[in-house]
Amino acid sequence: MQFQAPESLSEQIAQHLGRQIITGELRPGARIQELKVAGDLDVSRGSVREALLILERRHLIRIYPRKGAVVSGMTPELVNSLYDIYIHLLRMLADRFMAARTAADEQPLLQAINQLCRRLTGEQANVGEVIDGGLEIMRTCYPVVNNPYLEETLENFRPAISRTYYMVLADDPEEMQVSRSYFQRIAERIEADDHQGVTEAIRDFGEHQREVALQALARDESLTVEPAT
Amino acid sequence: MQFQAPESLSEQIAQHLGRQIITGELRPGARIQELKVAGDLDVSRGSVREALLILERRHLIRIYPRKGAVVSGMTPELVNSLYDIYIHLLRMLADRFMAARTAADEQPLLQAINQLCRRLTGEQANVGEVIDGGLEIMRTCYPVVNNPYLEETLENFRPAISRTYYMVLADDPEEMQVSRSYFQRIAERIEADDHQGVTEAIRDFGEHQREVALQALARDESLTVEPAT
Repeated sequence: MQFQAPESLSEQIAQHLGRQIITGELRPGARIQELKVAGDLDVSRGSVREALLILERRHLIRIYPRKGAVVSGMTPELVNSLYDIYIHLLRMLADRFMAARTAADEQPLLQAINQLCRRLTGEQANVGEVIDGGLEIMRTCYPVVNNPYLEETLENFRPAISRTYYMVLADDPEEMQVSRSYFQRIAERIEADDHQGVTEAIRDFGEHQREVALQALARDESLTVEPAT
Repeated sequence: MQFQAPESLSEQIAQHLGRQIITGELRPGARIQELKVAGDLDVSRGSVREALLILERRHLIRIYPRKGAVVSGMTPELVNSLYDIYIHLLRMLADRFMAARTAADEQPLLQAINQLCRRLTGEQANVGEVIDGGLEIMRTCYPVVNNPYLEETLENFRPAISRTYYMVLADDPEEMQVSRSYFQRIAERIEADDHQGVTEAIRDFGEHQREVALQALARDESLTVEPAT
C-alpha cells in the first residue's frame, strides 16, 4: 500500500481526524472547519485541505461547494448502501483469492484469522484490536489477488465500515464473540477447500454486520443525522 | 453529484490534467511536477497538490512518497485489474437498476441510449462524444439505484476506463459501430424486461472492451510503461 505517503503531514492529519470520526467523537453531520483544525494542530490550512480530500476519498466526510466539510451521515439508507457495495467487493476479493491461491498463500491468512480469534477469546479484547485484526486478514489476501484497484477501493471503504463496527461493539461487546464464530467458519471453509462456502460465509458475516449496525442505529436516533446539503 | 465542487480551482486543474492523461497527451509513467504545473497554469502549488489528490482518487495518477506524481501505468495486468472491478460494479449497477426501476425510470435511460446510437451512426461521431454518451447513460441509472457509494466508486473509475476506450477508438474507429450494437442489445433487453439479459449484455460489452483495449495495447508497446516505484 503506497497510495499515500504514510509519513506525509496531510496523511497524519487525515488519520487524526479519521480516528475521531470512526470512534464517534466527531459525530455524523458535524462540520469540520479548516481554520480551526489548522489552529488546533498548528499546521497550514493547505495541509488541512489535503487531509480533507483524503478523508473524502475514504468516505468519512463530504465536501460541499462553498460550505466546507461535513462528517458523513449514518442514516439507515447510507449504512445499507455502504454494506451493499462493501459485501459485493469483499465477495469479489474472496472469490479471486480462492481461485488464485496456493497452499502457501493460505498460511498467512489462516494465521491472521487464528490470531484474531485468540485475541477475541481473551478478556481484554478491545474494539480497536478487533478492527485492526479484520484489516490484517484482508491485507493477507491482497498480494494473492493482485488487483490494485480492488485493494484501493476496499481500503477506502474500511474506515466507514470500521465506524459502524465501532458503534456496534461499543453498544454490545458480546458481538465480538459472534464475529469470532464467523471468522472461525471462514477459516474452516478455507481449510476444506470449499470455494463457495467461503464466499457464502463472508456474505453472511457482512449481512450480520449490516443488521446489527442498523439495530444499533435504531437505538441511538441522535446518530442518524442527515448530511447537510 | 456533489462530491467535489465543480467550480473549485483544484477541480478545474484536475480536469485539465485529466483530459491530457485520458487522451494520451500525458503518457503512462510520465512524471507530473507540481512546480511546473503551478507555473504553466499560474496557480498556487497548494491548488496543484489538491488537484493531484483528486486525480489519484480517479486512478489516473499515483503519488509516491518523496517522488511525486506519476501518470498511472497501462500494462496488460493493470488493464485487466481495472476491467475486473469495473465490470463487477457495472453489473451491480445494472442488477440494482433492473430490480428497482419503474416504467417511468426506463424512459430517460432508453432515451440516452437511443441518442448515443444516433450519434454513433453519423459520419462525424468522435471519441469524446461517445465517451460522454456512455457516461450519460450510467448517470440516468444512479437516481434509481440510489447508492451514493456505488455511484462515487463508478464515477471515480470512469476516467481510467475512458483512457482505455480513447486508445481503442483512436486506433480503430470501427469499434464505434461495435459499441452501438452492444448499446442496442442492452436497450432491447431492458424493453423485454429481461433482467438477466441486461446484466449479461453489460458483462459481454465490458469483456469486449477489455479485449480490444488489450489488443490496442499489444500494438503500441510504448504505452505499457511500468509505473515508477
